[in-house]
Amino acid sequence: MSLYAVIMAGGVGSRFWPRSRRSHPKQFLDVFGQASLIQNTFARLQPLVEAEHVLVVTHADYVGKTREHLPAVPAGNILGEPVARNTAPCIALATAKLIAQDPDATMVVLPADHLIANVERFHRVLRVAVKAAQGAGDGPAPLVTIGIRPTHPETGYGYIQFDADGDLDGVRDDGPADAPRPHQVLTFAEKPDVQTAERFLDAGDFLWNSGMFIWRADAILAAFERYLPKVYKLFAPLASEFGTDREAAAIADAYNRSPKISIDYGIMEQADSVLVVPGSFGWSDVGDWRAVHELSEQDDAGNRAEGNVILKDTSRSFARSADGRLLVLVGMQDAVVVDTGDAVLVCHREQAQKVKDIVDFLGVHGMEDYV
Amino acid sequence: MSLYAVIMAGGVGSRFWPRSRRSHPKQFLDVFGQASLIQNTFARLQPLVEAEHVLVVTHADYVGKTREHLPAVPAGNILGEPVARNTAPCIALATAKLIAQDPDATMVVLPADHLIANVERFHRVLRVAVKAAQGAGDGPAPLVTIGIRPTHPETGYGYIQFDADGDLDGVRDDGPADAPRPHQVLTFAEKPDVQTAERFLDAGDFLWNSGMFIWRADAILAAFERYLPKVYKLFAPLASEFGTDREAAAIADAYNRSPKISIDYGIMEQADSVLVVPGSFGWSDVGDWRAVHELSEQDDAGNRAEGNVILKDTSRSFARSADGRLLVLVGMQDAVVVDTGDAVLVCHREQAQKVKDIVDFLGVHGMEDYV
Repeated sequence: MSLYAVIMAGGVGSRFWPRSRRSHPKQFLDVFGQASLIQNTFARLQPLVEAEHVLVVTHADYVGKTREHLPAVPAGNILGEPVARNTAPCIALATAKLIAQDPDATMVVLPADHLIANVERFHRVLRVAVKAAQGAGDGPAPLVTIGIRPTHPETGYGYIQFDADGDLDGVRDDGPADAPRPHQVLTFAEKPDVQTAERFLDAGDFLWNSGMFIWRADAILAAFERYLPKVYKLFAPLASEFGTDREAAAIADAYNRSPKISIDYGIMEQADSVLVVPGSFGWSDVGDWRAVHELSEQDDAGNRAEGNVILKDTSRSFARSADGRLLVLVGMQDAVVVDTGDAVLVCHREQAQKVKDIVDFLGVHGMEDYV
Repeated sequence: MSLYAVIMAGGVGSRFWPRSRRSHPKQFLDVFGQASLIQNTFARLQPLVEAEHVLVVTHADYVGKTREHLPAVPAGNILGEPVARNTAPCIALATAKLIAQDPDATMVVLPADHLIANVERFHRVLRVAVKAAQGAGDGPAPLVTIGIRPTHPETGYGYIQFDADGDLDGVRDDGPADAPRPHQVLTFAEKPDVQTAERFLDAGDFLWNSGMFIWRADAILAAFERYLPKVYKLFAPLASEFGTDREAAAIADAYNRSPKISIDYGIMEQADSVLVVPGSFGWSDVGDWRAVHELSEQDDAGNRAEGNVILKDTSRSFARSADGRLLVLVGMQDAVVVDTGDAVLVCHREQAQKVKDIVDFLGVHGMEDYV
């Protein structure tokens, strides 16, 4: 049973404006050092998944750039979506591709643009999740996800409640008490308000929804057939089209006729046998500039400066200059300043989510050069 | 008795960095609309002083730029200082020039880089000050300054205490009760702390020191001879050198041997017969970016945006973009953001005074391109 990875790289990440642009989305940014987020995601899969077994699903416009960032991945493994239809069609496409290639495949599905600080612990959790996904005994192989043990009452993530007492015969790990082990999922919860998030944190049986999934290709295919039959009927037949001259047209047709739906809503929240492996490995979805600031190395005043920057009487701030231009902050607290040559963003750290609204505004007002 | 004006334009105004540079000081900036500060200063003198009677004293490096900004002023009236020696030598130079030209001259001396919102009221005050300076009766002609009625307990200005009850025979204006009239000066006070400034404001007999002076040329010459004899001996002989081929060398020699001293400290605080005419005409010395923001037209949220700027959930802020580059503020309060193409300043409004320290830092660290 070979292990494959599917990297979902379809988004734009407009909260990283002005660095992220329609032509250069978040996953291609080197927000933490030399490598891009997608390169880091690929690199940390390497010990478990060989490069030839990595698939990437991205927007058709980004196929070329993805190939540049991941030269070790075979060109044919980088699939372009003609339109964005959320995660369920994206996963259905990758599943069709894998089923055609290796009907016995086990898939690790994960976003291209997340941060994982402790890769070794991530690998331990992933190995347990893979083992659980490959099933045991005679029952159907389960759908498995990874949940992150929450460190604070975050309102920006969905949550997963798991059965802390449940006994999973045959898949229980025999390691030490803190070893990762799978649990039955009880419920998926939407992004909560702060009071609910605090209750989740106190309860102890809620995890952050990481958006990482592990399952056998035939198990998720069966789940599509049962829970998302329309998507199944559009995408399952693609298995016989890959590598033919009908491939592009068939994919385009499936996407054009597909609903927009997430894998969480369409399948994970519906399915009977869903497991979660809790983990703690310094995970973040790096959702905005505030997250970049928090996850970056800082000086004693809590500042992070990149490029030609001078800070005076400034604290808890992130400043990045471009093209050698001088950027000076005086008397600032909790500021994010990002210069990209053609645009400068000055944002309060706690309002970094609103940067997305600026991108919307620019689009609506015909300022396409900046989008 | 002809009226002359001396515009003092020697400073750099480094608090206006990054717009002000050593090669392009504050007085040449168009901080309030189309015209530069020095052009505005010249224009508002026009109804009282003809262009041929305007002298400008500036640093030798800025003579060319001053001529460009004030083409109506005869080239020979723009005097270059080889080194900056504060205001007393600057005024001594202009006085020597005027004495040579018109021994009966009355001089209005004023800085190049101030703002006056109500020009008509300024003219009324100036006319009263000129009349007072030309003297009456047999006594020596007085030295006259203009004091600004304080509107708040400002700690950034020096103050002038005047004799509110004193009767000045012969120079009292016979107009209505609120007409400007001269008063005897009691004391000059340094920039106060905030408690002292509040006391000054409550007292009612303190005015802001505007740095504007009105006197007969022979009166200030006599004051130099008495109170600053060293400066007098260096500069008074220059009267016979203007227009000769010795002019430049003689001026350079006087400056090189001159002490650095202000006219306030050297003469005004020492002299016996000093008058002040209180005025209220929307005056500011436009000392930093905070002052520019306060004196600019603002939107309902207290913002001032110049150029290609988008503001979201932002208030009490000043933002100026350069070269069409897009500048976006999100969730900011009390911010000053100034882009000049090669540099971007992001400063808390209440800490705008510290911008000067940045310029010092750049100089010390060899970042001359930005100074």
